[in-house]
Amino acid sequence: MLRIGVIGYGYWGPNIVRNFSTANGSEVIMVCDMNQQALKKIKKAYPQINVTDNIDELIKNPEVDAIAIVTPVFTHHELAKKALEAGKSVFLEKPFTYTVAEAEELIELAAKKNLKLMVDHTFLYSGAVRKIRQLIDDGILGDLYYFDSVRVNLGLFQHDVNVIWDLAPHDISIMDYCIDEKPQAVVATGVGHFSRGLEDVAYLTFYYDHNIIAHINVNWLSPVKVRTTLIGGEKKMLVWNDLEPDEKIKIYDKGVKVKTKEGQYNLLVDYRSGDMWAPKVEQTEALKLMAEKFADYVKNGEPIVNDGIAGLNNVKMLQAANKSLKNKGAMVNI
Amino acid sequence: MLRIGVIGYGYWGPNIVRNFSTANGSEVIMVCDMNQQALKKIKKAYPQINVTDNIDELIKNPEVDAIAIVTPVFTHHELAKKALEAGKSVFLEKPFTYTVAEAEELIELAAKKNLKLMVDHTFLYSGAVRKIRQLIDDGILGDLYYFDSVRVNLGLFQHDVNVIWDLAPHDISIMDYCIDEKPQAVVATGVGHFSRGLEDVAYLTFYYDHNIIAHINVNWLSPVKVRTTLIGGEKKMLVWNDLEPDEKIKIYDKGVKVKTKEGQYNLLVDYRSGDMWAPKVEQTEALKLMAEKFADYVKNGEPIVNDGIAGLNNVKMLQAANKSLKNKGAMVNI
Amino acid sequence: MLRIGVIGYGYWGPNIVRNFSTANGSEVIMVCDMNQQALKKIKKAYPQINVTDNIDELIKNPEVDAIAIVTPVFTHHELAKKALEAGKSVFLEKPFTYTVAEAEELIELAAKKNLKLMVDHTFLYSGAVRKIRQLIDDGILGDLYYFDSVRVNLGLFQHDVNVIWDLAPHDISIMDYCIDEKPQAVVATGVGHFSRGLEDVAYLTFYYDHNIIAHINVNWLSPVKVRTTLIGGEKKMLVWNDLEPDEKIKIYDKGVKVKTKEGQYNLLVDYRSGDMWAPKVEQTEALKLMAEKFADYVKNGEPIVNDGIAGLNNVKMLQAANKSLKNKGAMVNI
Amino acid sequence: MLRIGVIGYGYWGPNIVRNFSTANGSEVIMVCDMNQQALKKIKKAYPQINVTDNIDELIKNPEVDAIAIVTPVFTHHELAKKALEAGKSVFLEKPFTYTVAEAEELIELAAKKNLKLMVDHTFLYSGAVRKIRQLIDDGILGDLYYFDSVRVNLGLFQHDVNVIWDLAPHDISIMDYCIDEKPQAVVATGVGHFSRGLEDVAYLTFYYDHNIIAHINVNWLSPVKVRTTLIGGEKKMLVWNDLEPDEKIKIYDKGVKVKTKEGQYNLLVDYRSGDMWAPKVEQTEALKLMAEKFADYVKNGEPIVNDGIAGLNNVKMLQAANKSLKNKGAMVNI
Repeated sequence: MLRIGVIGYGYWGPNIVRNFSTANGSEVIMVCDMNQQALKKIKKAYPQINVTDNIDELIKNPEVDAIAIVTPVFTHHELAKKALEAGKSVFLEKPFTYTVAEAEELIELAAKKNLKLMVDHTFLYSGAVRKIRQLIDDGILGDLYYFDSVRVNLGLFQHDVNVIWDLAPHDISIMDYCIDEKPQAVVATGVGHFSRGLEDVAYLTFYYDHNIIAHINVNWLSPVKVRTTLIGGEKKMLVWNDLEPDEKIKIYDKGVKVKTKEGQYNLLVDYRSGDMWAPKVEQTEALKLMAEKFADYVKNGEPIVNDGIAGLNNVKMLQAANKSLKNKGAMVNI
Repeated sequence: MLRIGVIGYGYWGPNIVRNFSTANGSEVIMVCDMNQQALKKIKKAYPQINVTDNIDELIKNPEVDAIAIVTPVFTHHELAKKALEAGKSVFLEKPFTYTVAEAEELIELAAKKNLKLMVDHTFLYSGAVRKIRQLIDDGILGDLYYFDSVRVNLGLFQHDVNVIWDLAPHDISIMDYCIDEKPQAVVATGVGHFSRGLEDVAYLTFYYDHNIIAHINVNWLSPVKVRTTLIGGEKKMLVWNDLEPDEKIKIYDKGVKVKTKEGQYNLLVDYRSGDMWAPKVEQTEALKLMAEKFADYVKNGEPIVNDGIAGLNNVKMLQAANKSLKNKGAMVNI
Repeated sequence: MLRIGVIGYGYWGPNIVRNFSTANGSEVIMVCDMNQQALKKIKKAYPQINVTDNIDELIKNPEVDAIAIVTPVFTHHELAKKALEAGKSVFLEKPFTYTVAEAEELIELAAKKNLKLMVDHTFLYSGAVRKIRQLIDDGILGDLYYFDSVRVNLGLFQHDVNVIWDLAPHDISIMDYCIDEKPQAVVATGVGHFSRGLEDVAYLTFYYDHNIIAHINVNWLSPVKVRTTLIGGEKKMLVWNDLEPDEKIKIYDKGVKVKTKEGQYNLLVDYRSGDMWAPKVEQTEALKLMAEKFADYVKNGEPIVNDGIAGLNNVKMLQAANKSLKNKGAMVNI
Repeated sequence: MLRIGVIGYGYWGPNIVRNFSTANGSEVIMVCDMNQQALKKIKKAYPQINVTDNIDELIKNPEVDAIAIVTPVFTHHELAKKALEAGKSVFLEKPFTYTVAEAEELIELAAKKNLKLMVDHTFLYSGAVRKIRQLIDDGILGDLYYFDSVRVNLGLFQHDVNVIWDLAPHDISIMDYCIDEKPQAVVATGVGHFSRGLEDVAYLTFYYDHNIIAHINVNWLSPVKVRTTLIGGEKKMLVWNDLEPDEKIKIYDKGVKVKTKEGQYNLLVDYRSGDMWAPKVEQTEALKLMAEKFADYVKNGEPIVNDGIAGLNNVKMLQAANKSLKNKGAMVNI
């Protein structure tokens, strides 16, 4: 049983506490938050969990095997470093860190101390993403053409980061998990509409080798919630609508073959349009599955898809996208 | 009765002939196409229309008052110039021309000869776009935040232009009609997946003053057809789904107010989420209405929204977008 | 080439004329209508077709091989009888006749004169219904449990028949084509809301042997248009949404196994919930295909699924349903 | 604070315990279930709640002010009677009782003992149904034409009652709440497909005066879940789709005016088709609101819409529908 201490009980913390409490292989034994109201809520819901507003008390608690950090991104590096130095493996809320340098330092430190790092890329544990990965692995889609993801809704505005840092880590983690290459460069555009200057609408294009392109549309000012990803492949094309209660993934037997002949006016294009197929997608709670993998990773070293390296890659792309955004779309190499 | 000659009877030509034939105020008296099969089809469907494969015969026909050019964009300038020089007003398929210089020359020539130019921005005559324009005029949406348009489907691949020149003229014409400013710059990304090198997936971001941003997603390789535009405004937000048979436009009484206070950790955001309203949208055929406006424009000088200047603006944005695309997203001023 | 005379050029007549004109194997040579405006329209659209307002002139025209009757149901029997007596095969708009006796007389007469009868059950020629029939034939659905069809919209109110006679012939023809048994009895309910007394909302339940049940919901007063049929089978279940542009048919690998044990409180039920699959459905125009089958039937005796017997069966069910409706749901044997 | 004892902790019991625990004005102090596993679950989730497998212990507990009965319908009468005789007000799961006689006896007994009865017609406390009721009260819909409800899905099969007793209480309670009249008669059809003989597909038609008709389609064998109600009115028409996360209710400014003239062949019908409007619907949890109303009802006699009389009316209609079902649609007066 992995004994976990959780730092941060704000918007997302309760989900982390609930899942690490009920997952096989782990239990939450202590939670730290500055806010006394939050501590009262924990005590009411989980009388057996100790609470504190003193971070050091949690980090140095010898009963605690590993620490989950569910705080704003600006605090990740400092808290995680302290935890690692205290000999605890660390679970970090996404985004992993705010800079590439911070991420690299944590990875190095963890390696030195033989500790583990996991970043909360929850979607990689959802039935839908695991099914998509499997379809790609099995060659069902063929060579990939593009990955096009839309994640828009009204709010929740973050007070400290723009919409890229808030929403795009999800899409980037999924994209990075599904595509067997790393992007070469990114172009990002966007604007903010309120005085504080944080962008609330942004568009990211990632260039890969082999003509693969990925695009991410994130927006805090949409009247409707959209969570849709299109993946085009040579053999099949896929639409994932995460808001569908059933039939989240639809696979289309559609495609095109283009032939060009020297000196020919008309293009020869064959269109293929066949059946559509919606495979059953497992309905397991992703967060709970991830919590179980964390225990397994810390205790048995069982490899995971969202380790520190995955976190670092995510931050690399976020940081590059943010740099491009600030330069109105100037391409930034990754 | 405006007597019209039509050049080109390929994919779109039959729609032009049908609508200029049935519209009040105009009739088609001659059609020119190189393809003898096309000419046979016309004769069968419209025994009263003269056909020819000789462009000069049509252009110089004294019975012809105005000429509709429904041919590939590369031929627009040459054909339109000839027509204007022969004293005929001209209706041009979109995109207006392939370069800004060509567009400017045609406008100048038409002005000199006191002739009229119209470009086929059909959507501006649809019930949906006219309703959106009216909602903006009436101040219903308030100040605009963003315009986000998706136009994707499988094919039709064009043999001579990329997906931007094929699909984006629609979105750009609508955007230009709905937003009371001109964009300052554009960033475009995209790739092609077939040997001929024409981009089949592309993403365009237009920067405006006052933090308005417009984004256009065009794709010939999508398994599903999408025609959706989101428009965010300070007072209301709008979703236009052109594939809905009814309720094409939905207006959401949703919004956000952001207040920041010096030194305050938590952001103060008020979300407003009220009723949704789908106004009735007129179901008139846009192309027919446009044909009637053309006759009115040529004969009475009644102003239109899709004159040569509108065509020129459209080409300016297309040309700039294409330049940015070739430079992997480098911002291009318009 | 089967030369066809058409009686009736009202709401549906133009579709019949257009399709019998363009179908392989037939041509329309004469149309009769009482309305002079209708005759003018025909002359304009089809200069080569002769028109008349004298039914006898059409029926006795020796150039006419077969007659399509596209008039109100009350006139079907008289007109079809005349046509058969004049030696012409007959295509009849649905519903076939208004009484079973009328239908039987026409069938007998046609047999005696060695002529053919076809009823306009258009849907049997649609890609969707042919696919459904094929899925049932191939045993994909297994034994059928139920057939549940909804056909509702606003209007078009008929002046002479209630909503059952107007809309239910479609559902009944499809049901009768897809289910390999004949219903034993029908229960129908409904009301009318306007002074003339014709029902505008109605619900029909057909009882079959083997616990198959069919239900049809027809309504002229619905704010939304619905065209959806659910078919439950032992092995698979199917949803046909005819308003979907693509993916009209969805097949669900879902089912249930119920086991009961004597004296056991809890029911043992196994639920199966697997993939969904949307087979490609052919997009051919049903009416044109039917027109071609008519020519083939009349000239070569090639069997069809919508002959006089099919029309008779349809009328049997309509008449029984109407009788039940008038008796507020009293069961009527068929 | 109303102290509540709950009998039954099976499928629905946990929801009742959770809501009566968190609602203002009540707390759960004891739960009874035969199943020891269920008791363990309660103890884990609610250490402060006493548990027992002895019904009398709960009913006679002087600390208990009121009793919630969440058991199969066959036990409702006996348990509620005992509770009332012990001086406790009673909350009963739907359906209220299995027979009209049982319902009447409970109402009489409660009145005699000055105790209160409430039946779990949860939907009456949902934002959607309250909005619909308000729209009708405000005259927005005008005179009602019809109420047409579909409630179908795969399972959950009940072991003791058919699909009418399981699903239709919801629709009947909503219908009864929204329509200002009582139905005169019912016609019900349906069949079962498994050996035990319980109907799993059923269709109910309720006849009202003034040509109002209500129809309910319930089905345990549908591959898709549908929760849709159409309400047609003279002035407006309404569609309620309870599965929509937003825009649950859509109001259509659509209608029809029918005029008939003596001796006139063509019907004069005016169709009206205007805007659609989706009012904001409150997202409060219906069950919690109902729990608060129960406490208010028991303590202060504040009138409610789901008292014993509402339960009785519901059972009257269920019993009549079931009788009609057994007689293959023979009309049964209510």
